[in-house]
Amino acid sequence: MVNDLIAGVAAGFRSSRRGLSIADLVDTLQSLPVEEAADALTQMPDARAVAVLDSPELRCAADILSRLAPARAVALLSQMSEDRAADVLSDMEEEDAAALRAGLPATVRASIETLLRWPPDSAGGMMTTEYVACPAEASVDEILAHIRTVERSRETVYSVFLLEPQGRLVATVSLRQLIAAEPTSRVIDLARGHDPITVAPTTDREEVAHLIRRHDLLALPVVDEQGRPMGIVTVDDVLDALVAAYTEDTQKFGGVEALDGPYLETGFLAMIRKRAGWLSILFFSEMLTASAMQHFESELERAVVLTLFIPLIMSSGGNSGSQATSLIIRALALGQVRLRDWWRVALRELPAGMALGAILGLLGMARIALWQTLGFYDYGPHWVLVATTVGTGLVGIVTFGSLAGSMLPFLLQRMGFDPASASAPFVATLVDVTGLVIYFTIALAILSGTLL
Amino acid sequence: MVNDLIAGVAAGFRSSRRGLSIADLVDTLQSLPVEEAADALTQMPDARAVAVLDSPELRCAADILSRLAPARAVALLSQMSEDRAADVLSDMEEEDAAALRAGLPATVRASIETLLRWPPDSAGGMMTTEYVACPAEASVDEILAHIRTVERSRETVYSVFLLEPQGRLVATVSLRQLIAAEPTSRVIDLARGHDPITVAPTTDREEVAHLIRRHDLLALPVVDEQGRPMGIVTVDDVLDALVAAYTEDTQKFGGVEALDGPYLETGFLAMIRKRAGWLSILFFSEMLTASAMQHFESELERAVVLTLFIPLIMSSGGNSGSQATSLIIRALALGQVRLRDWWRVALRELPAGMALGAILGLLGMARIALWQTLGFYDYGPHWVLVATTVGTGLVGIVTFGSLAGSMLPFLLQRMGFDPASASAPFVATLVDVTGLVIYFTIALAILSGTLL
Repeated sequence: MVNDLIAGVAAGFRSSRRGLSIADLVDTLQSLPVEEAADALTQMPDARAVAVLDSPELRCAADILSRLAPARAVALLSQMSEDRAADVLSDMEEEDAAALRAGLPATVRASIETLLRWPPDSAGGMMTTEYVACPAEASVDEILAHIRTVERSRETVYSVFLLEPQGRLVATVSLRQLIAAEPTSRVIDLARGHDPITVAPTTDREEVAHLIRRHDLLALPVVDEQGRPMGIVTVDDVLDALVAAYTEDTQKFGGVEALDGPYLETGFLAMIRKRAGWLSILFFSEMLTASAMQHFESELERAVVLTLFIPLIMSSGGNSGSQATSLIIRALALGQVRLRDWWRVALRELPAGMALGAILGLLGMARIALWQTLGFYDYGPHWVLVATTVGTGLVGIVTFGSLAGSMLPFLLQRMGFDPASASAPFVATLVDVTGLVIYFTIALAILSGTLL
Repeated sequence: MVNDLIAGVAAGFRSSRRGLSIADLVDTLQSLPVEEAADALTQMPDARAVAVLDSPELRCAADILSRLAPARAVALLSQMSEDRAADVLSDMEEEDAAALRAGLPATVRASIETLLRWPPDSAGGMMTTEYVACPAEASVDEILAHIRTVERSRETVYSVFLLEPQGRLVATVSLRQLIAAEPTSRVIDLARGHDPITVAPTTDREEVAHLIRRHDLLALPVVDEQGRPMGIVTVDDVLDALVAAYTEDTQKFGGVEALDGPYLETGFLAMIRKRAGWLSILFFSEMLTASAMQHFESELERAVVLTLFIPLIMSSGGNSGSQATSLIIRALALGQVRLRDWWRVALRELPAGMALGAILGLLGMARIALWQTLGFYDYGPHWVLVATTVGTGLVGIVTFGSLAGSMLPFLLQRMGFDPASASAPFVATLVDVTGLVIYFTIALAILSGTLL
């Protein structure tokens, strides 16, 4: 089985024109025990081995490299794209990484060490230093000639930076502009009509993704305080970053701390840690429901019929809340709604919540009336009042749920947190406790003198 | 105010080198009443007006175009990228659209009508027909010469399709390969070592995004049954598609039908419709909790103390369920877990659920013991048994929640639905009903003879 796989891998790089794609090779290696993956890699020609190691999907790259002969490992590392090489080195045991870094050519080592300085989810952590830059006064054919000589060593050559003598970035031109332009013309005259869009190395990955999308860029320059280019973030890095960000957001919305790796590769204890934290916090908050119920115990004893609808009413509040939260989280993320629009949203959610609550309230009352009249269940002599209590309670709780659920993301952003950390369970908990109080208060108002 | 904005827009396109970026212009127009936006656009030179209309962020493009002089509207449409032009036309009133389509050059009209044939979230709906194709036996400099002549009219020139005489796509080469290559060499010799990655026009947008990410492509060819290129999907379209897909998934996970537009631009009634449907379905399922409670009514009357913990226990089940669901939804979306891995996941979630349940169970029992001994509340003579019931109940319900929440996405995918339509509210509801039964069964087992 494993031998077939290695054979497959071998076939992959032997057949020159119709072999496996790099992505398939990566999947195959990923599925092998790391020793055998290292084996298979050593058999590959450098070019192909580098292409494989360059794919972020090869999660075992660090383990593979530490198992190769140091000389080969260094040779491959120095040919890899620098941002990826930096990521792989940071995944390694510190002493292995140090040994390999020491072997690298000084220039490569230098720029890799620059990259390692920034957090992985910042522009600095995503960027590569392998970009093409030219003096702003160069001519089109000079730059094309330059690109031809450096093409192999650059992550992208599709956007070219034009620099002032002091090294400040003044404009970017695209390769398509260059090849379409008059060879002798000055390149600065091709530059787009406004300052180049740039980010600082500390810019968050989601902001980077937003800018690349907004301006349809293939690469976004990262510049220092003096506006000198430090590197570029390319669109393929951004695609990966977006997907990673979405995964974190979904997990947060589900009430889990974001996992560090794929589900099946996360250790059992790590998994428990990521989940137990939030689960316990929510549990402690939910304890307030027990306190609330204790507070109304005498009512509960006198009217057990009220307890029958507690789960129904509470869950409706939680559901409407998580609906509102999911809507607002995305609206904020897409910039469709800004912090200052909170009152606009509140003015929409208040009537929306009332309408939704009314719908559910009528359904609930109909249910009680039906069961009572069809004799499925006897809600007692005051069943009409009970039905009214349930109906009114639903209006109140669904309204509160929609309002609370929609305001929570604003509150979090206002407090400097990521609005996407407003999780469905958190909203549900928030609404449960208040929901009980609303329910019993309404019950007291409607049923005192009869049932209570 | 509005006049300042128009002035701003005017300034935007008048100052040639340091004006507003297209994206800023789009935002400005988007914020104007549509008549004034149309006004501002008419003042712009074609090139800039086209760039503005080409941005998907300009949601009012259809309204603006229908307000322009037909001749100008047609002129702009025919210069827009064809995929965007098709989208804009499909947003228009049918008769307006028909009138404009009739005015278009026959070739443009033809390819726009091809694009309109496919659903917007398919490769066919995302693709543009403005790609560069060349005979496979051409030489590098022939192709570069060709690119120079067609550059303006193509959405991307960074990947070039090589066609057999019969028109079948045999390979793709990148512009960077072309400019780095020997001008006289045959282009087919530059082609990558395997069949080109292609999709059918019916391929789903998320699959398209996956392939572009997996193979780091700038453009993905869409081919017909004979393998002849029909168009390309470019990476910027994919970025937009990913964001749209993720917004839908988040809304679904929150238990809302995906909105068709931005939150604040969705009409009140549309908003209610999108939310009331799911909310009512969940409400009907939650009614089973009332039935379950009715079933255990005699127990409830004898031991009201049990009701105090119902919200606490039910919400814990729902929370653990939504955690598991969010983890599995993403693991499936990223291909980290496949349908056939369901049992692997189950074998992880079972112990994970028990561990998490045990943690919460101990917390719950501690809470009861504490309140009892500190005299905050009297759970009666059998409080130890009550605490044991709550603790055991939590283990059972959290285990069931984790298991059910993790299996639901598999079930949905198995049934041919999108696993991402497993919403947190849905899981919570599922767990609530079962949770009550588990809780009362355990209560009967532990408390019969004493409280029950």
